[in-house]
Amino acid sequence: MSKKQLRVGVIGCGAIGREHIHRLMSVVPSATVVAVYDYFEEAAQKVAAAYDGIEVFPSGEAIIESEGVDAVLVATTDDTHAGYVMHCLENEKYVFCEKPLALTVPECEEMMEKEQAIGKRLIQVSFNRRIDLGYREMKQAIKDGEIGEPLMIHSAHRNISQAPGFETDYAITRVAIHEIDITRWLLDEEYEEVQVLTVKQSRRTSGDWLNPQLVMFKTVSGQRVDVEVQTDGAYAYDIQCQVVGEDGTLNLPDPAKVWKRTNQSFSYSLTDHWAKRFIESYDTEFNEWAESVVADQLVGPSARDGYVSCVVADAMIRSRKTGRPEKIELVEKADIY
Amino acid sequence: MSKKQLRVGVIGCGAIGREHIHRLMSVVPSATVVAVYDYFEEAAQKVAAAYDGIEVFPSGEAIIESEGVDAVLVATTDDTHAGYVMHCLENEKYVFCEKPLALTVPECEEMMEKEQAIGKRLIQVSFNRRIDLGYREMKQAIKDGEIGEPLMIHSAHRNISQAPGFETDYAITRVAIHEIDITRWLLDEEYEEVQVLTVKQSRRTSGDWLNPQLVMFKTVSGQRVDVEVQTDGAYAYDIQCQVVGEDGTLNLPDPAKVWKRTNQSFSYSLTDHWAKRFIESYDTEFNEWAESVVADQLVGPSARDGYVSCVVADAMIRSRKTGRPEKIELVEKADIY
Amino acid sequence: MSKKQLRVGVIGCGAIGREHIHRLMSVVPSATVVAVYDYFEEAAQKVAAAYDGIEVFPSGEAIIESEGVDAVLVATTDDTHAGYVMHCLENEKYVFCEKPLALTVPECEEMMEKEQAIGKRLIQVSFNRRIDLGYREMKQAIKDGEIGEPLMIHSAHRNISQAPGFETDYAITRVAIHEIDITRWLLDEEYEEVQVLTVKQSRRTSGDWLNPQLVMFKTVSGQRVDVEVQTDGAYAYDIQCQVVGEDGTLNLPDPAKVWKRTNQSFSYSLTDHWAKRFIESYDTEFNEWAESVVADQLVGPSARDGYVSCVVADAMIRSRKTGRPEKIELVEKADIY
Amino acid sequence: MSKKQLRVGVIGCGAIGREHIHRLMSVVPSATVVAVYDYFEEAAQKVAAAYDGIEVFPSGEAIIESEGVDAVLVATTDDTHAGYVMHCLENEKYVFCEKPLALTVPECEEMMEKEQAIGKRLIQVSFNRRIDLGYREMKQAIKDGEIGEPLMIHSAHRNISQAPGFETDYAITRVAIHEIDITRWLLDEEYEEVQVLTVKQSRRTSGDWLNPQLVMFKTVSGQRVDVEVQTDGAYAYDIQCQVVGEDGTLNLPDPAKVWKRTNQSFSYSLTDHWAKRFIESYDTEFNEWAESVVADQLVGPSARDGYVSCVVADAMIRSRKTGRPEKIELVEKADIY
Repeated sequence: MSKKQLRVGVIGCGAIGREHIHRLMSVVPSATVVAVYDYFEEAAQKVAAAYDGIEVFPSGEAIIESEGVDAVLVATTDDTHAGYVMHCLENEKYVFCEKPLALTVPECEEMMEKEQAIGKRLIQVSFNRRIDLGYREMKQAIKDGEIGEPLMIHSAHRNISQAPGFETDYAITRVAIHEIDITRWLLDEEYEEVQVLTVKQSRRTSGDWLNPQLVMFKTVSGQRVDVEVQTDGAYAYDIQCQVVGEDGTLNLPDPAKVWKRTNQSFSYSLTDHWAKRFIESYDTEFNEWAESVVADQLVGPSARDGYVSCVVADAMIRSRKTGRPEKIELVEKADIY
Repeated sequence: MSKKQLRVGVIGCGAIGREHIHRLMSVVPSATVVAVYDYFEEAAQKVAAAYDGIEVFPSGEAIIESEGVDAVLVATTDDTHAGYVMHCLENEKYVFCEKPLALTVPECEEMMEKEQAIGKRLIQVSFNRRIDLGYREMKQAIKDGEIGEPLMIHSAHRNISQAPGFETDYAITRVAIHEIDITRWLLDEEYEEVQVLTVKQSRRTSGDWLNPQLVMFKTVSGQRVDVEVQTDGAYAYDIQCQVVGEDGTLNLPDPAKVWKRTNQSFSYSLTDHWAKRFIESYDTEFNEWAESVVADQLVGPSARDGYVSCVVADAMIRSRKTGRPEKIELVEKADIY
Repeated sequence: MSKKQLRVGVIGCGAIGREHIHRLMSVVPSATVVAVYDYFEEAAQKVAAAYDGIEVFPSGEAIIESEGVDAVLVATTDDTHAGYVMHCLENEKYVFCEKPLALTVPECEEMMEKEQAIGKRLIQVSFNRRIDLGYREMKQAIKDGEIGEPLMIHSAHRNISQAPGFETDYAITRVAIHEIDITRWLLDEEYEEVQVLTVKQSRRTSGDWLNPQLVMFKTVSGQRVDVEVQTDGAYAYDIQCQVVGEDGTLNLPDPAKVWKRTNQSFSYSLTDHWAKRFIESYDTEFNEWAESVVADQLVGPSARDGYVSCVVADAMIRSRKTGRPEKIELVEKADIY
Repeated sequence: MSKKQLRVGVIGCGAIGREHIHRLMSVVPSATVVAVYDYFEEAAQKVAAAYDGIEVFPSGEAIIESEGVDAVLVATTDDTHAGYVMHCLENEKYVFCEKPLALTVPECEEMMEKEQAIGKRLIQVSFNRRIDLGYREMKQAIKDGEIGEPLMIHSAHRNISQAPGFETDYAITRVAIHEIDITRWLLDEEYEEVQVLTVKQSRRTSGDWLNPQLVMFKTVSGQRVDVEVQTDGAYAYDIQCQVVGEDGTLNLPDPAKVWKRTNQSFSYSLTDHWAKRFIESYDTEFNEWAESVVADQLVGPSARDGYVSCVVADAMIRSRKTGRPEKIELVEKADIY
């Protein structure tokens, strides 16, 4: 691979945006950041001052329309994702969008129609779990038939705390959404039904949102998935996933940490934050994205993946209110996906 | 403790009965077996020939009524349990009964009424998981507040195979029944609702029964319990149990087996049969039972525990048929329990 | 097995003696304790008061000579073992002796000569590690060829504390002696050479004895064994043993304790005392001993095993003083061993 | 960090050289490869054809002397390292050298004298274990006092196979050399004495070299280190390291691989090759090196570290021949280290 640079424009210079810029500049050799924009101009100026060759643009749209920008990365607040992504499509420009792709299903559908009309994928959604080595080894083991047909998945998503402003719905749209995606990716199958069950509440919840919640999925072939969701107060940032197949089970391993024997116990550390657990996956995710853009052939999570997550999250919020299982209805899958 | 013997009569000399007789003779110093009966007289004769001081009786009733027998152990087929246990109560004789205590709820209710009338407990039901060191350590850790309030339990009961004649209902009445009991014992709480969910079926099922099944419990305080039940074809006899509390989780550990490094993998053995996993607990169970009988004060699982299991198992079978959650309704708890 | 009793006389009613009496009375159905003696008569009286059918004898010799005693258990202070054991041989009576069999090699040699003259084994030495399930599984795996020829053993013996009066030599004669025995039992081979290496000392040593020490063994076929010995101040009572073979390794597993996830770490408990780790092995050890005495054919650790331990321990003490490897010279093995 | 490039010349385009070139080009943003040389010109041509902007040079010396090259990477056969490194020093050019730094101690001493004369470090030796996250966590835990003073290290280095041409000495100079370095880095202390012990040999050795060997180190403060070295035929590429301190122990963890339950066993994979185990550490190693060169202040393993390894390896080879412990004598540490 040569040192030829993909010129990337980044919209959004908040914490995650800056993290992505640093990553693109330091571990993605085929890409370089050339343009930035932030609602708070100062944030953008600060980034531009820290690196050579980055220009501050007056708007996200200006970046998208710029001839000097080959691809766009959207790292703004959730409500603005859809607008920027659609603008990218209108300009037939590759775009990497943080999850969620959009707040509503119709927005996702519109994007898919537009991509289909263009005739190729331009959108990649960030579901970085798919790059994690543990999940990849699990998927490979399933493919290799090591556990026969998968029948169930038992998983848990546990968080120590949330940023201020967190709401009950976010337990689904920002937390469980990772499980929505990674589970269907592991099983290579769509959901038929989803149910959110109320659970005895933890005194360790700092806000007034529902915590924990228990989510039940049923896939089209009848596989069952249970996902425990703790958004707050857990003992660690801990992600557990067990795939149960006809011939055995596979568990996502704990990260390798030093094995200690002290004070009459054996122990090893668990992490306290998602970034420490999964941030490395962004290295690979950006590298694979940059290379696939250069090759003009996207391979990462698509607008369709973003759309399915959106449909399922909507059904989960409905189920939490009705207390009943809710059906999942998806539009036909277009050729390009 | 002295070598004074509790004289035990055993009704049923099949595989499990013989196992129990051997155990009483070899590891329970305060008890000795003096009387046996089996539907097949030959089986009883064989046992009597193998040990000193055991007499073959013409019927289970004769054993129960004998002045030379202080306590009775019932290890016959499930359908005969209730009759023998009631006969023991009528003769005010201590009885240790293999699970299930009875096939129907009314039979259990009748036993409880009789015991209440007598004014003390005479019945102990065998739920030997409660003696397992792992479960005991978990219960103690919960009591000690190590994980705060328990909110959920995720568990799994996996079997390699079943004896001929196994039926779908047995997945509940003979398999999941252990989880029904151990879970309410761990949580020290009753169930409010139960649901059995169908799951994609395993090709490794040798019979035509439903396998696996996924069982969901909800306790009175809102705790949720999911239990995966594999009755056949699993990779091992494997029992998993994770209690999720406000401050952490507790997992039933795998039995200690040698840690091997060979052929590019780390591994240790899992067992293939429940007896290898839990048979040791019978040592303690019988010892504790014999001592509590001698002390005239039973402490092990009661007729009430047998009754609750029966009520819950019935509701589970209903739920499997209706597909809906089913409510659990229990009679008031009598003073003696 | 019948309830026929082997009548055992116990010499020594201290902590370990009382533990053994309780064990014989409560978990060894084929044996019963009928006679006790202790240097402090009160200790013996107390035991006799606690059980039916135990008589206090005026001396250990009286017990050994009594017609009402079938076998003797010696649980006195180390310096008196040899005298009682020899007295048993003179009376051709079976004797179970706590380690060490004797304080000096000539005493052990005299016992072996006497046994050889009698023509059968009467002595069993207590090396209870050999009964531990972990070690037994390791030995079986070696026999089954799972790791090919064993080439090395890495092991560690770590103690939290010692009783008052502990001395540096005891690190060998009372602590490492377990490793001397279990290692040659696992490898089924004798030592050729042994060396004790000095190590940087731990501030956590409460006495003035050498702690830790590092012991190196070489077997006749060239296998190497390193044993770390911590007699004091360790984080737990922890015994580690790794056998390295041509095709893999085997590790003694940690005892099964509940797996906890709390406070950003995964952990499980380690034990603080040898009794919690290995006391269960005495159940089996006594049962096997009682049955082998009844069958008139001892199978447990022999006077020869006690002798080898004594020879090796002597060489280790020499090596600690000289700083050099010391050769192990053993007398020919008699037919009866 | 800007995209400003450090221009690197690579001498040696064999397997490891090509691996390094790829790494520099794809994950080290501040460096780029501009010049290559190989004894086999074709190998160099192939590399130049695969990347933009790489020129083939007629000799390693030409690369070292080139004004267009800021720093040199030496990845040739071991016997040529010293010559290229000295030539770099003569041209006051930064050089990253694969281990070993040189074949003889005098060569290392000459390099240190030259560096000292220049007045700053120019040499970095590749000891990539120091970058491994597990070792780094161990070193941090020691610094944090989690196990008190380290007293011993038990470690093992096991290989499945070796390239053709492997010799017994290489078990020390190419294999154990990693343990020589990582151990003194972990303990932050020098060795006083080293001994190589012969061990019963494995039938799985494909060559005629000594395998396994057991190496014993003693540090200046009396810490003891045992290192098992298997160069061939092991069950996996497996590196084990346990630091034993006054208050506890630390073990290098196994890499995180999926936890499987199949065929009556729990298992996870171990790797078969050092590259799969430690190759990622090169990413960080090169990044840290490139940044420290740009900052004109080397921080990685120095010529002194290469020198100590060489002295210790020599003593080990002597000890293997004499069978005795051999003393380690080091020259005074110069200011720049």
